[in-house]
Amino acid sequence: MSTRVESDTMGTIEVPTDKYYGAQTARSLMNFDIGGEKMPVEIIRAFGILKKAAALANFKLGLMDEKTRDLVVAAADEVIAGKLAAHFPLVVWQTGSGTQSNMNVNEVISNRAIEMAGGTMGSKKPVHPNDHVNMSQSSNDTYPTAMHIAAVEAVENYLYERVQLLRDTLNAKAEAYMDVVKIGRTHLQDATPLTLGQEISGWVAQIDYAMAAIKASMPQLKELALGGTAVGTGLNAHPDYAVTVAKEIADLTGHDFVTGPNKFALLAGHDAFVGTSGALKQLAVAFMKIANDVRWLASGPRSGLGEITIPENEPGSSIMPGKVNPTQSEAMTMVVAQVMGNDAAIGFAASQGNFELNVFKPVIAYNFLQSVRLLADAAKSFNDNCAIGIEPDRKRIKQLVDQSLMLVTALNRKIGYDNAAKIAKTAHKNGGTLRDTAIELGLLTGEEFDAEVKPEQMVGPLKLKK
Amino acid sequence: MSTRVESDTMGTIEVPTDKYYGAQTARSLMNFDIGGEKMPVEIIRAFGILKKAAALANFKLGLMDEKTRDLVVAAADEVIAGKLAAHFPLVVWQTGSGTQSNMNVNEVISNRAIEMAGGTMGSKKPVHPNDHVNMSQSSNDTYPTAMHIAAVEAVENYLYERVQLLRDTLNAKAEAYMDVVKIGRTHLQDATPLTLGQEISGWVAQIDYAMAAIKASMPQLKELALGGTAVGTGLNAHPDYAVTVAKEIADLTGHDFVTGPNKFALLAGHDAFVGTSGALKQLAVAFMKIANDVRWLASGPRSGLGEITIPENEPGSSIMPGKVNPTQSEAMTMVVAQVMGNDAAIGFAASQGNFELNVFKPVIAYNFLQSVRLLADAAKSFNDNCAIGIEPDRKRIKQLVDQSLMLVTALNRKIGYDNAAKIAKTAHKNGGTLRDTAIELGLLTGEEFDAEVKPEQMVGPLKLKK
Amino acid sequence: MSTRVESDTMGTIEVPTDKYYGAQTARSLMNFDIGGEKMPVEIIRAFGILKKAAALANFKLGLMDEKTRDLVVAAADEVIAGKLAAHFPLVVWQTGSGTQSNMNVNEVISNRAIEMAGGTMGSKKPVHPNDHVNMSQSSNDTYPTAMHIAAVEAVENYLYERVQLLRDTLNAKAEAYMDVVKIGRTHLQDATPLTLGQEISGWVAQIDYAMAAIKASMPQLKELALGGTAVGTGLNAHPDYAVTVAKEIADLTGHDFVTGPNKFALLAGHDAFVGTSGALKQLAVAFMKIANDVRWLASGPRSGLGEITIPENEPGSSIMPGKVNPTQSEAMTMVVAQVMGNDAAIGFAASQGNFELNVFKPVIAYNFLQSVRLLADAAKSFNDNCAIGIEPDRKRIKQLVDQSLMLVTALNRKIGYDNAAKIAKTAHKNGGTLRDTAIELGLLTGEEFDAEVKPEQMVGPLKLKK
Amino acid sequence: MSTRVESDTMGTIEVPTDKYYGAQTARSLMNFDIGGEKMPVEIIRAFGILKKAAALANFKLGLMDEKTRDLVVAAADEVIAGKLAAHFPLVVWQTGSGTQSNMNVNEVISNRAIEMAGGTMGSKKPVHPNDHVNMSQSSNDTYPTAMHIAAVEAVENYLYERVQLLRDTLNAKAEAYMDVVKIGRTHLQDATPLTLGQEISGWVAQIDYAMAAIKASMPQLKELALGGTAVGTGLNAHPDYAVTVAKEIADLTGHDFVTGPNKFALLAGHDAFVGTSGALKQLAVAFMKIANDVRWLASGPRSGLGEITIPENEPGSSIMPGKVNPTQSEAMTMVVAQVMGNDAAIGFAASQGNFELNVFKPVIAYNFLQSVRLLADAAKSFNDNCAIGIEPDRKRIKQLVDQSLMLVTALNRKIGYDNAAKIAKTAHKNGGTLRDTAIELGLLTGEEFDAEVKPEQMVGPLKLKK
Repeated sequence: MSTRVESDTMGTIEVPTDKYYGAQTARSLMNFDIGGEKMPVEIIRAFGILKKAAALANFKLGLMDEKTRDLVVAAADEVIAGKLAAHFPLVVWQTGSGTQSNMNVNEVISNRAIEMAGGTMGSKKPVHPNDHVNMSQSSNDTYPTAMHIAAVEAVENYLYERVQLLRDTLNAKAEAYMDVVKIGRTHLQDATPLTLGQEISGWVAQIDYAMAAIKASMPQLKELALGGTAVGTGLNAHPDYAVTVAKEIADLTGHDFVTGPNKFALLAGHDAFVGTSGALKQLAVAFMKIANDVRWLASGPRSGLGEITIPENEPGSSIMPGKVNPTQSEAMTMVVAQVMGNDAAIGFAASQGNFELNVFKPVIAYNFLQSVRLLADAAKSFNDNCAIGIEPDRKRIKQLVDQSLMLVTALNRKIGYDNAAKIAKTAHKNGGTLRDTAIELGLLTGEEFDAEVKPEQMVGPLKLKK
Repeated sequence: MSTRVESDTMGTIEVPTDKYYGAQTARSLMNFDIGGEKMPVEIIRAFGILKKAAALANFKLGLMDEKTRDLVVAAADEVIAGKLAAHFPLVVWQTGSGTQSNMNVNEVISNRAIEMAGGTMGSKKPVHPNDHVNMSQSSNDTYPTAMHIAAVEAVENYLYERVQLLRDTLNAKAEAYMDVVKIGRTHLQDATPLTLGQEISGWVAQIDYAMAAIKASMPQLKELALGGTAVGTGLNAHPDYAVTVAKEIADLTGHDFVTGPNKFALLAGHDAFVGTSGALKQLAVAFMKIANDVRWLASGPRSGLGEITIPENEPGSSIMPGKVNPTQSEAMTMVVAQVMGNDAAIGFAASQGNFELNVFKPVIAYNFLQSVRLLADAAKSFNDNCAIGIEPDRKRIKQLVDQSLMLVTALNRKIGYDNAAKIAKTAHKNGGTLRDTAIELGLLTGEEFDAEVKPEQMVGPLKLKK
Repeated sequence: MSTRVESDTMGTIEVPTDKYYGAQTARSLMNFDIGGEKMPVEIIRAFGILKKAAALANFKLGLMDEKTRDLVVAAADEVIAGKLAAHFPLVVWQTGSGTQSNMNVNEVISNRAIEMAGGTMGSKKPVHPNDHVNMSQSSNDTYPTAMHIAAVEAVENYLYERVQLLRDTLNAKAEAYMDVVKIGRTHLQDATPLTLGQEISGWVAQIDYAMAAIKASMPQLKELALGGTAVGTGLNAHPDYAVTVAKEIADLTGHDFVTGPNKFALLAGHDAFVGTSGALKQLAVAFMKIANDVRWLASGPRSGLGEITIPENEPGSSIMPGKVNPTQSEAMTMVVAQVMGNDAAIGFAASQGNFELNVFKPVIAYNFLQSVRLLADAAKSFNDNCAIGIEPDRKRIKQLVDQSLMLVTALNRKIGYDNAAKIAKTAHKNGGTLRDTAIELGLLTGEEFDAEVKPEQMVGPLKLKK
Repeated sequence: MSTRVESDTMGTIEVPTDKYYGAQTARSLMNFDIGGEKMPVEIIRAFGILKKAAALANFKLGLMDEKTRDLVVAAADEVIAGKLAAHFPLVVWQTGSGTQSNMNVNEVISNRAIEMAGGTMGSKKPVHPNDHVNMSQSSNDTYPTAMHIAAVEAVENYLYERVQLLRDTLNAKAEAYMDVVKIGRTHLQDATPLTLGQEISGWVAQIDYAMAAIKASMPQLKELALGGTAVGTGLNAHPDYAVTVAKEIADLTGHDFVTGPNKFALLAGHDAFVGTSGALKQLAVAFMKIANDVRWLASGPRSGLGEITIPENEPGSSIMPGKVNPTQSEAMTMVVAQVMGNDAAIGFAASQGNFELNVFKPVIAYNFLQSVRLLADAAKSFNDNCAIGIEPDRKRIKQLVDQSLMLVTALNRKIGYDNAAKIAKTAHKNGGTLRDTAIELGLLTGEEFDAEVKPEQMVGPLKLKK
């Protein structure tokens, strides 16, 4: 492997020639040979945005010259675009402030800018990783800022759209099947009827609630720590820096980021992630309910409930037709399990700040972003490969609701509670239908029964006589 | 034990004469001899409100006569006031819809109303537990309604006030000590200074964020399931009932409850509790940070950090003065651990709904209400017995900041980075102060040092020359 | 309220005349008005055992006279027997070392012993709470010792028996129904058959695994901290004390407790509780599987799976016979949710030790003992009120397995894969049975079909020809 | 991209020419575009072992010919060796039985074997993915078998060694510093002294307990599901297959795997992972305690506790010497947070089995293996980059213990409790040392004080006079 020499305050170290990173990244690679989970690409991209915004702000405040600004911005743009992914090799399990990933970004932008300027990589001229790329910053305020940028982009640019897709599909299904009367089930036991559309509308409402919860939590993630520097006081930063750089970040991302009013809290706590992760967990439990209902309703083909059919995406059984494994539900519910675990990790990590710093930043970012990505991807996959293909098995649905003993309640008014109960008990004992039993017992004719027992009239409140 | 006979559809059963409850409660006591955790009193009270509101609504809608309404209301008022606590013996670990607690309330209100009317307990006349007290209701929509009422009252009537107390105390401390310059600490290592007031302001901001998160989550808890009856369709309910009874509940409680637009979601999911529990966890992690900072800052008396003193509430050591165990921090952080666990239980439980019902209602209510109560009580206890008595040890604080090597950064401008670093390295090696070392090395006079190294000028952004 | 004056090193305080506790308990009541969760009775009992054992050991080592020993033992016996429950009012949320509960026990035993000796309560003569009852002890080693005693008694005296009850009932059911051939279900989809007894045997195996895990974890809980005194060094304790007192505790309880070889770990970590709680969680997940299978298999009466029936313990529906809500499954699975949450709380709490002490002891004890109690009680309740009454609905079971398309695999050998698949596809399309379809397609006669398709021969490995 | 045509029962599909996988893998790639977490390499390797063992067993039982066996074994060996990593592109979030990863392995081994035999990839000749590679197997018993193999290898081949490394380093430190007397700390407050070696011995004991817990849990993971086939009955498997193949796996891996006595439990529950994950969490909480103690003891350089020094692995501060950020502790404690979360995900997932299958297999495997890997790697990293370099700052340690007021307890015997307390109170009030104060108060001479107050005699039980 061809190498060049890079240096930091601890001395020199060799790095691969084809990599832009420098000494501190190289040291981190040696010191933290733990797992394989890389710093999330969303964080790297957010750092690119942050470094670009900082250069723009520093220039506006007269702290950086135009040429340096342009070089930093050009290199940062490549980071933002994901072109330099190979140059960010660090793992999550490193310094808890994410310092080394901040330095990794500083080094890569510095060396790429130097390269653009025709300089010598590692020379730190004309763009110095610390003096220029990290100007007016500290790891302690950059990393939490990158966390917030990455989180907001992930939720608002990625999650919203994918969940909306599923929500809208389900809503269309709810509307399409609003008149398909089916048996209700409570305690897993037969209950009074409702329509398939009503049942699905409950899923839609659960998603709507969860998305409202997520949205309500976002303002806290839009408050940025940048400008707090090392301990939150803003030492060495221009007094207008915090506001200016937040404005730049808002402009670059199109999200309404603002500078946080209290930087101490933003360096030492990452409580906003706990709140939003709780809202993500709310989405997860809604998905669990939906995915479970779907697979149970589709259970069968013969010995399950079988009220709906779902797309067959892969071979279920080589010989048995109709065995359609609910694999999208399975992927979805595994994602739910993961989000539950991630939420626990985030809560633990966020609780462990001390004084001016919480040193569990990378693990919080890693879990949060994984939760967002998995929920979004699972929503889209479930939508595309399952939800859009949900169809009612009208025959089976009708059969189950018609044979239900719960319908007997419709007879109370006509023949009295005692007679109605007698029909139900006899039918249950003999395994007959309510209708046959009623006729058999001589309590109603078939026509009378049909006139009274209309499941479709049992799916809403009382109809008032005008 | 003197008993009387009560009956339900399964037959008769003996119940203690001195208890208002009836057959279904008695059966539940036998069938669920599990643990000792009683249905939370907040739920019982909420049921009282609900039953009163239902009677008022049923009367308004012409479904209940005035006399019955008055009897139900009078008995319900006693439930609300907590006068009948002894008559609610059921545990959390029962039917997952909370059916038996709904029946417990129906039975107690019925029998107490009967007693008021001079009737015979158990006769179900003139106030029938099902036909009157439970009119227009089902366990499936009453229990979730009681959960929401209890949750909103607990959070808004109880938690808000107690947390505000602590928040305001800390805020006053932040203001009082805004000029007490102290060493900052990041990675538990000495860092650049800030003031004690700034440090405490971070705690206040964390509490403010958490309370904002809790508040943002409350609208979902204010949507009520009542009117959905057994499966969410509202079968057998008056079409105006849901709106009417929600309005009654709002009037009775003073909270802006409304009927939920989709009852299916409100019976089968309890996702709102997941969202709010996540916000409660956000408060918990803030409390963890605060309680930890307090006990570390108060550590000592000789071999700890010792920057603040806290009240001595109980004997620490019989012989050693100054050993003040941070017991309020300990109680607080144990509460945090509990809230973390409760949140996990709530998430699990809320994810397990099927079709038209989630049958983990009591366990959700139990954990949620415990979290609220413990956070509120711990906030008040911590406030009264610790926070109000926090005092800086100014001498110790000054000693620590003055001896800090981090202050050397203030000399960069005067003598250059290299000389400044030389002072720091020599001081670190010899254990001397920066000031003594600077003089010793002949780099500055004592006066020059004092003019440059002013910690109080290092606690904010750059001062710009006008 | 009549009061008397008690004192501690902070001064005097009034306590109710009818209570044995003293000044430190009274102070704790004022300082920790948090929640209502009392220190678990198992801990109080364990403290009684511990104090008795300490008195016996101190006497044997010549540190306590016979008369004092007898008084302490007599009072401790009343604590052990639960006679003094009213005198232990403290909550879980107190000093994290459980100091005040240790003092509560010291005070109660002292005053009760004084009373027995005809002395004046509060005089600390002739039995002093610290000098005698707490002799050779510190809160820091007594509370963890009480935790271990309580945990071992709860698991081995209480949990084992109740779980065994359920396990044996299920095992009897497995044996009883070992020949009841039923449809298998994977992915909730129809699969090849097995017997009901085989299915239930899987539940039994899950319980056996979990109990093996719990048992394997117990040795760690049998190592006691007593003798470590304040920081683990054993300062002020007789060198033979630790071994002697552990032997006394073993003799008193009948469990093979030993003194822990490293007291530092036992004061500052409570990791054994994490391990055993993990094993309890293993039992919980097994219970979840079982309770879920039971309620799904019993779902119906008409529109569910309906392969088994379970006892009807309370009214399910007033009019609809056969609606038997699986309430024992519901209570059981709510307990599972709680155990999951408790495990999270225990893990968090146990991770937070510092130096010579972990100050999350009461919250660990509270959650652990609740998990044990709930699992044990739920096992017994589920056994008595559900498992013993599980019966197969043989008709329904046969119907479902006979109509299953999966049985077609049995025809491969006879008519080839392609013809077999053709039968299945046609049957699926037309909703017919395999048998009818096979005859219809002219591929086999009814007799040939019956000779080949024998579900009961599909519930094990290949039968080899001898 | 060059492609070839592969087929399964759903039809044909194009796959990249340079990949060995076939139709089902290609379908899964399209159907599950969720996240980026690949099926763990440990699982792929385990599948290689399993497929090789199955071929060997099938040959022994006369079900497979020698030539086919050799081809399967040869291709499986490459999978085991990790040479075919690029051919396993599937993610964790797929069918919950891991079916598609089983098929991925079948397809890769088939095509690689075909290639070795000079055949045409995709032709399924002479080695068929289903008929040969998957012979006597079902996804439902292969994936759990692979989970167990991977788990046992990860724990016993990887974790044990790395944790032992750290344990032994700490044990050596404990022995090395067994005489370094230091202040004890309980409640973060100064307490009676112990030695640094004693303190570290507590860490070693915590690790030993955790490793004992992990070891005690391993037998359950060594029971294999293979031979259960689709639902646990072993349908279509040779009656000797289960035992034979388990023996092959034991021989291939060197671990004492056996066939599980009840396959139903092993397909439908993965409870053993819950138990072992609980034990891993026990290790995590021990690591948390150790990493926290290390960073607190190393806190400073001036304003912390500063009792030990740790290696400086990366630049802490460019100007301030002595600021050594405890980055290894930070990485370690982030790993702990992750393990906590993973344990929650595993518990949730393992609880969700139904009937004959648990469909959360991949998410359990993913979390479990990540926990093992991270704990192992963090142990090694912490050992190599931190623990081996821990050194006491003897001067600081002595200063802190000497100035401690707790030492006054040593004077009780000489001058009585009251006088001793007087010294302590005066010293605390005036900030003096005990020695100076004692002399000042005229209670002892310096020589007398020195004779009595010997911290090194306070680090164990009473010395008995012979």
